[in-house]
Amino acid sequence: MPSYTAPVKDMQFLLHDLLNVTATGVAGYEDLDEGFTGAVLEEAGKVASAVLAPLNASGDREGCVLENGVVRTPKGFKEAFEAMKDGGWTALDCDPDYGGQGLPYLMGTAVGEIFVSANMAFNMYQGLTHGAYSAIHTHGTDAQKVMYLPKLVNCDWTGTMNLTEPHCGTDLGMMRTKAEPQADGSYLITGQKIFISAGEHDLAENIIHLVLAKAPGGGEGTKGISLFIVPKFLVKEDGNPGARNAVSCGKIEEKMGIHGNATCVMNYDGATGWLLGDLHKGMRAMFTMMNEARMGVGLQGYAVAEAAYQNAVAYAKDRLQGRAVTGAQNADGPADPLIVHPDIRRNLMDQKSFVEGARALTFWGAHMIDRSHREGDAAAEGLISLMTPVIKGFQTDKGFEMAVAAQQVYGGHGYIEEWGMSQFARDARITQIYEGANGIQALDLVGRKLAQDGGKHVMAFFEMVKAECKAHDGDDRMTGFVEPLKAASKQLQAAGMYFMQHGMKNPNAALSGSYDFMHLMGHVCLGLMWTRMAKAAHLALEAGKGDKAFYETKIATGRYYMARHLPACAMHLARIETGAETVMALPAEAF
Amino acid sequence: MPSYTAPVKDMQFLLHDLLNVTATGVAGYEDLDEGFTGAVLEEAGKVASAVLAPLNASGDREGCVLENGVVRTPKGFKEAFEAMKDGGWTALDCDPDYGGQGLPYLMGTAVGEIFVSANMAFNMYQGLTHGAYSAIHTHGTDAQKVMYLPKLVNCDWTGTMNLTEPHCGTDLGMMRTKAEPQADGSYLITGQKIFISAGEHDLAENIIHLVLAKAPGGGEGTKGISLFIVPKFLVKEDGNPGARNAVSCGKIEEKMGIHGNATCVMNYDGATGWLLGDLHKGMRAMFTMMNEARMGVGLQGYAVAEAAYQNAVAYAKDRLQGRAVTGAQNADGPADPLIVHPDIRRNLMDQKSFVEGARALTFWGAHMIDRSHREGDAAAEGLISLMTPVIKGFQTDKGFEMAVAAQQVYGGHGYIEEWGMSQFARDARITQIYEGANGIQALDLVGRKLAQDGGKHVMAFFEMVKAECKAHDGDDRMTGFVEPLKAASKQLQAAGMYFMQHGMKNPNAALSGSYDFMHLMGHVCLGLMWTRMAKAAHLALEAGKGDKAFYETKIATGRYYMARHLPACAMHLARIETGAETVMALPAEAF
Repeated sequence: MPSYTAPVKDMQFLLHDLLNVTATGVAGYEDLDEGFTGAVLEEAGKVASAVLAPLNASGDREGCVLENGVVRTPKGFKEAFEAMKDGGWTALDCDPDYGGQGLPYLMGTAVGEIFVSANMAFNMYQGLTHGAYSAIHTHGTDAQKVMYLPKLVNCDWTGTMNLTEPHCGTDLGMMRTKAEPQADGSYLITGQKIFISAGEHDLAENIIHLVLAKAPGGGEGTKGISLFIVPKFLVKEDGNPGARNAVSCGKIEEKMGIHGNATCVMNYDGATGWLLGDLHKGMRAMFTMMNEARMGVGLQGYAVAEAAYQNAVAYAKDRLQGRAVTGAQNADGPADPLIVHPDIRRNLMDQKSFVEGARALTFWGAHMIDRSHREGDAAAEGLISLMTPVIKGFQTDKGFEMAVAAQQVYGGHGYIEEWGMSQFARDARITQIYEGANGIQALDLVGRKLAQDGGKHVMAFFEMVKAECKAHDGDDRMTGFVEPLKAASKQLQAAGMYFMQHGMKNPNAALSGSYDFMHLMGHVCLGLMWTRMAKAAHLALEAGKGDKAFYETKIATGRYYMARHLPACAMHLARIETGAETVMALPAEAF
Repeated sequence: MPSYTAPVKDMQFLLHDLLNVTATGVAGYEDLDEGFTGAVLEEAGKVASAVLAPLNASGDREGCVLENGVVRTPKGFKEAFEAMKDGGWTALDCDPDYGGQGLPYLMGTAVGEIFVSANMAFNMYQGLTHGAYSAIHTHGTDAQKVMYLPKLVNCDWTGTMNLTEPHCGTDLGMMRTKAEPQADGSYLITGQKIFISAGEHDLAENIIHLVLAKAPGGGEGTKGISLFIVPKFLVKEDGNPGARNAVSCGKIEEKMGIHGNATCVMNYDGATGWLLGDLHKGMRAMFTMMNEARMGVGLQGYAVAEAAYQNAVAYAKDRLQGRAVTGAQNADGPADPLIVHPDIRRNLMDQKSFVEGARALTFWGAHMIDRSHREGDAAAEGLISLMTPVIKGFQTDKGFEMAVAAQQVYGGHGYIEEWGMSQFARDARITQIYEGANGIQALDLVGRKLAQDGGKHVMAFFEMVKAECKAHDGDDRMTGFVEPLKAASKQLQAAGMYFMQHGMKNPNAALSGSYDFMHLMGHVCLGLMWTRMAKAAHLALEAGKGDKAFYETKIATGRYYMARHLPACAMHLARIETGAETVMALPAEAF
């Protein structure tokens, strides 16, 4: 059975050595000294290890059950959910005006990683609630905020996002769910939504569905779409749940993974809903939620890989098999532990260097969001908007790949459910699909984000990388970092140039390379983060700070990533530069 | 629910345009004219589509059940197994002296692919039986052959391979299962074996276990290991099953996939067994079986991807979502089919170009095995021995990757078990693990096969690639093939050179790059096959042979592979040339 320990030291390194949070001047960061963040992360780690992780495998085995319209979550989930609420964990980065603790998004991200690693399916119940909280907080009226936010903040009520219908997921313009205006200002919502995570369950006294639907007069396609609040139980004057609304769960899906989370078909049969935000501007409101959700899914990608990695390391140290090719290292035992073998090392280093790099990128992204939200920093907002599809797409592709790699360390035992490594791979798989399949992320990046605001943000990104390279040029300590980053950055720019030169004439020439571009940019981002982490580790070493071995390990892990993973950039560029010709060569009937 | 159609046209192309089988002079190939092979493949395809494929999803859902020592296979498996036997499919490439049809291994491979694509878990029952047949055919006494082979050939009895024990899989030197010699020449076998596919089931009247165990006097490690025949029911004088032997199934494993096949813990409690082959030479005998089994697993890798690909194509043509960026292609419909989108194309072309390339490599490998077995061609034997780990390791890694890619085409529906795409990914996952996890394949390739017979076989491989490039040099029709193949081949040679220069001083420097080398070589192999296929297609076109669009599609698909996948070779070389330094930098406690 897998176990999990929160990587508090690594997180502290990011907060204090890399981001140097208390010196950033971001409102609220001044309280994030090492003692405080360490205490929060340690406490979150205890909950994760003791309460959430033990329910991960059992939740996967049991799954959720629908009986008479009621969904029963796996044994122990209800108690664990209460423990999360009682500990105030659901309110961590929410607005104090509505019962939140007001910590920065960055801290919510760090704690979120810990909970996702311990039990991803479980954590989705509160994760989606946080999304609904954000949407209402951003777009709701004062009355709506007062009515819903305090309950969502403490997770007495949970939230959902309802976009997909059977015939349309990505292409929401084809949506059929209808909203009919009523005399009292409410709407009657009718239609079927599918793939609704946490759509129905027994963890909360009410569920607040945020539903996209078409109200009359909005025109064709996505223009006619509005966003509605549809509570499972209508809320009474006194703020308590009252009559049951005409919304019900028709089915829960049998999935590859995240069995602990109920994925529901939701039927809206003239359910009462209230407009959230502006009429016919539902897509815009939904995008607020979606960006946060995409960051969260990018986090899930590496968080599951972290949990898988921890267990792969333990197995590689414990399992005796074969002898080191350079001579026995456990001569008194019947064989050496797996970890002596170079190919096992390669595998573990792949996992370790990816997870730590992705964590740095995600924390940095959360910091950008705080800069944007708390300081109105438009440059930060532009950067994170550019990077969101990379964080989502690249990190979930690699996260799944690394969960599979961790499973591989176990040999045959990795394929047996009892050992728990299959679950990490099966759970991680969804992150490449939901919140916009990764092909859509690549399309968003290349078809939309690169050109956004006249290409300002991608130019800023290139400048940031260039400045980083320049800052360490000729610095012997940074050998193995600056050169590969410089080369990768040039390759990324060359790819962007290719799109500019060919994409206008033939958009397919750009879009045929979009997936490779997303990965190329992901490697540049992680290369940038590793360069910064290496520098931060050197500074800490020189200052004689803390644990020498820890900082040296950080630098060595970064060197591995730069040497072994940045060579992928040239491959991605070469693929991009072949354009659309071979991709689009065949007529559809030739497949 | 997924469906499957045998790719008979593609197979015929390989047999007759690429390999030109009837002109090879290999004994038995003279009968393989187009009419005959077409008829066999069409018939196999009918069985696959009508009998096996419909049981694939239901077999996955139901799985196998162990009750009172008896394993019940999923509904319909017994009837399907009888249909396979009645059709003579199990006897296809077996020795006519024992009831086989005597067709070449190449034909067994082609038909095998069809059955694996349709239902991998089901096909394992006869696949393992074929392995046991081969081991007894190669190493058995005349009496053993007469006793077991006819029953294994027609699958009245099935076979198993018993290697792994709870504490040792790869490192068989630690084996504990014991064989005690008895006065009558038999042995008493005592011990526990795990991960025994088809170890117990209800499809056959007897199960013939081939079991590795240690007999006295053989010395330490793998030297003391012998191979034994241990039937579930002892065979009576009249050749029929008699008394139950002391072997039983203690448990069946809950796995990630291949649920239709029973993976058993087998307990040998003083079971009666008979030596197969020479005493203390069991590993050698086992390797005969293992090489065949590894080829078979390499086949499974792409065969599952083929089935997944077929369904992804159907979905991509059917599902309407979004509009082509170059203008609506289904203007009368609410949206265009997925297949218009460049990133969906990229995905489908990845799958198509891999599967067809891997099929060519596998058929070519089967042809080498026929050359070796039927003509005593030592060069062919050397080549296929070199290539076996590449076919197993590379094709299963890519096969899984492509099954996952096919699942991705379905978006959210890909994650729902009902649609069947998750099963392809879950089933394909085992192929990277069993018959030697892929890290072991890479070790076998770099640590053993490259240097085998003084490096003769790898030199022959390089010569073969060089000759291919030379043959088409300056041929305009072959633009897009020769240059990338030449470059990739140089990169492979450079990698081999790196190992030679650094591996002697530091074996870790070679082994740190073994996995990349396996993939680099896999790309060169597929590049070689695509070059040959393109040439064959050009010749067919010029001869005005058959379906023009088919041959043009073949060439275009090859161009895609060369343009989009051979760039991976430079990346693998770059990684290899970083050696062991970053891979082995950390002490074990730093993980």
